Amino acid sequence: MSNHTYRVTEIVGTSDEGVDAAIRNGVARASETLHNLDWFEIVQVRGHIEDGRIAHYQVGLKVGFRLDGDS
Amino acid sequence: MSNHTYRVTEIVGTSDEGVDAAIRNGVARASETLHNLDWFEIVQVRGHIEDGRIAHYQVGLKVGFRLDGDS
Amino acid sequence: MSNHTYRVTEIVGTSDEGVDAAIRNGVARASETLHNLDWFEIVQVRGHIEDGRIAHYQVGLKVGFRLDGDS
Amino acid sequence: MSNHTYRVTEIVGTSDEGVDAAIRNGVARASETLHNLDWFEIVQVRGHIEDGRIAHYQVGLKVGFRLDGDS
Amino acid sequence: MSNHTYRVTEIVGTSDEGVDAAIRNGVARASETLHNLDWFEIVQVRGHIEDGRIAHYQVGLKVGFRLDGDS
Amino acid sequence: MSNHTYRVTEIVGTSDEGVDAAIRNGVARASETLHNLDWFEIVQVRGHIEDGRIAHYQVGLKVGFRLDGDS
Amino acid sequence: MSNHTYRVTEIVGTSDEGVDAAIRNGVARASETLHNLDWFEIVQVRGHIEDGRIAHYQVGLKVGFRLDGDS
Amino acid sequence: MSNHTYRVTEIVGTSDEGVDAAIRNGVARASETLHNLDWFEIVQVRGHIEDGRIAHYQVGLKVGFRLDGDS
Amino acid sequence: MSNHTYRVTEIVGTSDEGVDAAIRNGVARASETLHNLDWFEIVQVRGHIEDGRIAHYQVGLKVGFRLDGDS
Amino acid sequence: MSNHTYRVTEIVGTSDEGVDAAIRNGVARASETLHNLDWFEIVQVRGHIEDGRIAHYQVGLKVGFRLDGDS
Amino acid sequence: MSNHTYRVTEIVGTSDEGVDAAIRNGVARASETLHNLDWFEIVQVRGHIEDGRIAHYQVGLKVGFRLDGDS
Amino acid sequence: MSNHTYRVTEIVGTSDEGVDAAIRNGVARASETLHNLDWFEIVQVRGHIEDGRIAHYQVGLKVGFRLDGDS
Repeated sequence: MSNHTYRVTEIVGTSDEGVDAAIRNGVARASETLHNLDWFEIVQVRGHIEDGRIAHYQVGLKVGFRLDGDS
Repeated sequence: MSNHTYRVTEIVGTSDEGVDAAIRNGVARASETLHNLDWFEIVQVRGHIEDGRIAHYQVGLKVGFRLDGDS
Repeated sequence: MSNHTYRVTEIVGTSDEGVDAAIRNGVARASETLHNLDWFEIVQVRGHIEDGRIAHYQVGLKVGFRLDGDS
Repeated sequence: MSNHTYRVTEIVGTSDEGVDAAIRNGVARASETLHNLDWFEIVQVRGHIEDGRIAHYQVGLKVGFRLDGDS
Repeated sequence: MSNHTYRVTEIVGTSDEGVDAAIRNGVARASETLHNLDWFEIVQVRGHIEDGRIAHYQVGLKVGFRLDGDS
Repeated sequence: MSNHTYRVTEIVGTSDEGVDAAIRNGVARASETLHNLDWFEIVQVRGHIEDGRIAHYQVGLKVGFRLDGDS
Repeated sequence: MSNHTYRVTEIVGTSDEGVDAAIRNGVARASETLHNLDWFEIVQVRGHIEDGRIAHYQVGLKVGFRLDGDS
Repeated sequence: MSNHTYRVTEIVGTSDEGVDAAIRNGVARASETLHNLDWFEIVQVRGHIEDGRIAHYQVGLKVGFRLDGDS
Repeated sequence: MSNHTYRVTEIVGTSDEGVDAAIRNGVARASETLHNLDWFEIVQVRGHIEDGRIAHYQVGLKVGFRLDGDS
Repeated sequence: MSNHTYRVTEIVGTSDEGVDAAIRNGVARASETLHNLDWFEIVQVRGHIEDGRIAHYQVGLKVGFRLDGDS
Repeated sequence: MSNHTYRVTEIVGTSDEGVDAAIRNGVARASETLHNLDWFEIVQVRGHIEDGRIAHYQVGLKVGFRLDGDS
Repeated sequence: MSNHTYRVTEIVGTSDEGVDAAIRNGVARASETLHNLDWFEIVQVRGHIEDGRIAHYQVGLKVGFRLDGDS
């Protein structure tokens, strides 16, 4: 590996199914506009409750990607 | 939204299935006595191990709810 | 309970399925060499992304166990 | 001071004016049901944005009060 | 263990003797109104000084208890 | 709510008046280029002192917004 | 800028008006004895409640200043 | 209470007896040179081990005191 | 001191007496198998409550020791 | 200084030489696309080990820059 | 990558030269007894001062390695 | 060692060379006025960027020293 530089950006993925699905949804959406996504890290798990049931999960993620132009 | 006040209380939901089920169990039990539950946030995920297998998951949650009397 | 002493060690369990499976894999592997595993606590959830999809989940865990020789 | 015991509970005060007003609103509402409120501590300041302007401030507070029955 | 739910509440126990006594005083007072107290965790140790001597210790504790109605 | 994805970016708003004004200035400036701003959270409050008086307040904010293309 | 060294000290400014005034009061008082005050950072916001109203705000601040003798 | 300003300084008290004694030793020594000591807060508890036994306890404390000249 | 390397391991010492005794018990037990123990640091103080009284204290400790073979 | 707004973004600079070089590499690469870079802050230092030697250092940095259009 | 499990252990590397050398010394010493070292992360940088000069640097590191038996 | 008391103060050392030099500069300057300096700990590493290059490093340090009068 040469001396690549990475950027880290924060997203919130959501799902009405659960934590894993919220991670997958967020990463899939981010990969539409960000290339070379390399890793993620959970920073927060929250959610919304309606009528005593969980309406959706909100998972805060840091996602890292290699900057374009690095080869 | 007018100037509502919310209370935040901490619970621990448990399950022998996994993290999502422990969240759901905790929120369902809390909603029996607390009205207007609005959101949750995970503060800790622990669990008990027996004979090398996970016996149950314990998920610490902050749950927020609008105080009764606020309209 | 008498005055047992416990050790806490940190592992990273991985899975290509999700967070719960990564916890189970890590605990199962650790129990092959560590006896009397008693509890775990999640300290970090990360993962690797390939081609816009999650290639595997990496869950950092503290696991606690009673020291041998304590009865 | 004899050996009093205090309870600490967490609330979220809100306001469309600013941080100080959100603190005051939360403390005023909490004092309707909790007696002997003694101190507060800010744990989080968030807010909601609509049309590029701050619609309301949400200030998370721990509030401490002496337990009734202590004299 | 079936899928119990626990609540966690925060108290401040005080004593003019020391840290251990402040924990004991807080737990004893809390057990008068909260049933099924199961564990505590220290979150803060502070105290008041008068004339260069410690007038009393204030120990912030999270205490956890099983919700009534769970069997 | 369907499964929206949000981005979270960090800004520093400044003001020579006070904390609330620094929040408002930062959010107003960010909304010129970022659409669908939804919430903010304070992460740091600092400031510069000149001649014993506060020359300006610097308030670090995380601001979240729904990604364009989500409906 | 040559290689200056700074000291950082912690103060608590108080006010019965609000957070901004407590910052200003603390910085003004510190500047009577500390020269070359350069920046501040909030580390804690607490306050005292009397009769359900906020009696005074207590804002913990780190303040940095260039050591005398550095030119 | 008028608008006093406090300073907070950090000390490490030590003892070969235990945590409470290390707090008392540190506060007693600090009060020889700092007037108007008002409160302390533990920030760290460490210690030195020799031959498998605890040789001394080192308790990091923040201590707060009212600035002279405030009445 | 030449360039020694140290290892840091985490243990939980327990006692039904108090915090100091739990530290001593944990360090004494660790020193049976780990040589050259040099320092400890408290990372957590928890405990178990039975019938409204503290059944035992559990003190999480990091303990550091010089690696064998370093002279 | 008028009321500028700054953005803070997170990058990871890498180097096979050491921490300082990884900082310089990351800042140099970021400055190719971000104008008005003003400060950095280290948030994490990690690295990769191969054959018992450090293959490269990875230094997580927050970098702040004044938003274009502010004069 | 199949579902490997990793262990994370904490060491303190030291050097009288600087931070990078202390990292290298600690990793080199750890690699004598731990196989498959894969990554490190700095958790603390401290040092000892003698006669106003830095006598040695102490860098706390988490080091991760793949458990033997995983292929 | 008898029961010494230590003070801990925070400084910021700076350098245009790198992190190690900033530590050395800060410690050297502090030792001109503080006697018996015993240890340091890094609490923050920041720096200033000019024209895409690092103009100087700013390393926040806690430094501990034995109080005069302790023998």
